Amino acid sequence: MINNTMKNYGNNRSVIRDLFEFGNQRKAVVGAENVFDFSLGNPNVPAPAKVNATIRELLDTKNDIYLHGYTSAQGDAACREAVVKDLNKRFGTSFRKENLYMTCGAAASLKIVLTALYTPGDEVVVFTPYFPEYRVFIETTGASVRECPCDPDTFQIDLIALENAVTEQTKSVIINSPNNPSGVVYTEDTVRQVASFLKQKEEDYGHPIYLITDEPYRELVYDGICVPFVTKYYTDTIVCYSYSKSLALPGDRIGYILVPDEIADSADVYAAVCGAGRALGYVCAPSLMQHVIEQCTGLVSDLNEYREKRDLIYNALTDLGFTCIHPDGAFYLFMKSPIADAGAFSAKAKEFDLLLVPADSFGTPGFVRIAYCVATDMIRRSLPAFAKLAECYAEELKK
Amino acid sequence: MINNTMKNYGNNRSVIRDLFEFGNQRKAVVGAENVFDFSLGNPNVPAPAKVNATIRELLDTKNDIYLHGYTSAQGDAACREAVVKDLNKRFGTSFRKENLYMTCGAAASLKIVLTALYTPGDEVVVFTPYFPEYRVFIETTGASVRECPCDPDTFQIDLIALENAVTEQTKSVIINSPNNPSGVVYTEDTVRQVASFLKQKEEDYGHPIYLITDEPYRELVYDGICVPFVTKYYTDTIVCYSYSKSLALPGDRIGYILVPDEIADSADVYAAVCGAGRALGYVCAPSLMQHVIEQCTGLVSDLNEYREKRDLIYNALTDLGFTCIHPDGAFYLFMKSPIADAGAFSAKAKEFDLLLVPADSFGTPGFVRIAYCVATDMIRRSLPAFAKLAECYAEELKK
Repeated sequence: MINNTMKNYGNNRSVIRDLFEFGNQRKAVVGAENVFDFSLGNPNVPAPAKVNATIRELLDTKNDIYLHGYTSAQGDAACREAVVKDLNKRFGTSFRKENLYMTCGAAASLKIVLTALYTPGDEVVVFTPYFPEYRVFIETTGASVRECPCDPDTFQIDLIALENAVTEQTKSVIINSPNNPSGVVYTEDTVRQVASFLKQKEEDYGHPIYLITDEPYRELVYDGICVPFVTKYYTDTIVCYSYSKSLALPGDRIGYILVPDEIADSADVYAAVCGAGRALGYVCAPSLMQHVIEQCTGLVSDLNEYREKRDLIYNALTDLGFTCIHPDGAFYLFMKSPIADAGAFSAKAKEFDLLLVPADSFGTPGFVRIAYCVATDMIRRSLPAFAKLAECYAEELKK
Repeated sequence: MINNTMKNYGNNRSVIRDLFEFGNQRKAVVGAENVFDFSLGNPNVPAPAKVNATIRELLDTKNDIYLHGYTSAQGDAACREAVVKDLNKRFGTSFRKENLYMTCGAAASLKIVLTALYTPGDEVVVFTPYFPEYRVFIETTGASVRECPCDPDTFQIDLIALENAVTEQTKSVIINSPNNPSGVVYTEDTVRQVASFLKQKEEDYGHPIYLITDEPYRELVYDGICVPFVTKYYTDTIVCYSYSKSLALPGDRIGYILVPDEIADSADVYAAVCGAGRALGYVCAPSLMQHVIEQCTGLVSDLNEYREKRDLIYNALTDLGFTCIHPDGAFYLFMKSPIADAGAFSAKAKEFDLLLVPADSFGTPGFVRIAYCVATDMIRRSLPAFAKLAECYAEELKK
């Protein structure tokens, strides 16, 4: 009497959420300070001070209907105007507020775009490693996932693998840079090559192939690395964004979808986005947060704090002999499991109350994801546990 | 290349949203004070003072990770604990926090429950008049809608009509009391009769029929009217709630789903609810608002203000000769169109800048919905326009 697909999604939580819940239970037993939870991308660096200051100012100066009332389904006009103004200033683009649809965060952005575009039989290309919920969002639209392995050394996109993955049924390709979980930023060269390849395929097949760029980590980059703004390289680009990471507001659920005028069937895609948001029950993005975004879009939490955390954990773990992908962005360290079975490695780590996510469900077996967006002090205190873990694999780490 | 169903939902907005957007444009032309917008259920009565005071207190006393971080997918434990404690106190029930799943408002609650339960071929019974978005939420799960007309005089449920509507494919029945758009509250007698009928049908068919009770207006009742709490009358009841109306927070998107232990396959239904929330991209309900709910659940905006508005508009319009259903709850006045074509009547009203929603899409032609959750002053200022409208139908109103 129940939708079994949904029951299974409920009973088989994502491995990330599962570890997070395990961590919560374990903290109740051994004390929060003794659990080293690297499971969740829940930013520990505070929101920019202006976020809470803006909430206070709004409460002091605006009435309840403005603060808490419905906005238009596509989002408050002033909020959308502020967002595109900031994008245009930073990227030299010329978007209008009519290109923007405010959402309840990145998951909503992606789910809405996929629902807007997809009908059963269509295919979506994703690059491994990829955020495991992509599969849930895609498959529940009736479409199918085609995994495309990245270059195993650089974790950049492998063009030959892409050529094998794209078919006439490919309606879109999802990229995520800076990448969760690898921390890799796709270079301008990579983006150019992907764009040129997809343009050729669009001509070959005679239909658009949308490049959906899922970029909640866009501003979280270190050492002056530049993240190419994809709409400038490929015409049929749809941007999915969330403020969860840049403004450290993951629980508050606020983001957007950008549908540029230039993409094929732009008006129809925007209409379908509005329709999908409606059919999925979204009504409007949270209103108080939309008013906050109007003031705070373009800001970013303290990147120095993230870089400090990254350097601390990257250096410590490589010193212990672990092999890690050097992360240029986001707040994840992608570490090679010393044994083939990353699930078994993650289980062993749990014995030391180290919660590391095995990356099998990201489509890249043999790795774990370490979300280092945690208290720097926790990283420091976790290092002896990592050292003990390394001792368990002394033989393997010597190789 | 696009999902046409979604494109159509986007291009053919709900008649309510359409009027609301028309009103926004019209206000820009003739001035906000000259447009009498009764289209949207956007509460004009402010949130209880404790809501904004709680936000301020949270900002002053809690850290950003608590305020803005992810909660568990089913909702923050302390928030859920507070909600069930309040329900148990008010209704003498014994729910646990494990029965609760926090959502982004009523639309999300309904869409998640329907997605959790439904597979193509199933049927949902709804009573006319009903909130038009029900049809969108239901049909996009692949299920079909069976409309069941209410008693045309009392707008209570007509048991004989219900008997005709329920079939072996009926997986659930949705009730909404206090009702949007009629303002009618189902009596205890009505609820008992529906419960007894459905119990018999469950036995006849050998499978559960869930009663989904969509009750965002539960606390908005006048003159001491009592809203029966449905779980006490019918075992297989699932409650969908939103704080949009009781706390006047419609834009902030916060509500819940209650899955009692007693319902058939309770654990499976709860798992499917979690799975559906995940598949639809909800992640978690807005975190700051969850913390507000922990403090404010059970409060309600000033009912006296709503009653004053109701009495003002009901008395004025009946004095002008219009026939209106007397609303015991919610903040809608359901008024008979003086001509059969309520769309034409609504169009005529627009000429006087009166925005009244024709109820055809609610499944009850020949009526308009007047959302009187607006400034009392606006209601007063609108009365001359209503008088002019009445003059246009002087003949019909004499009958």
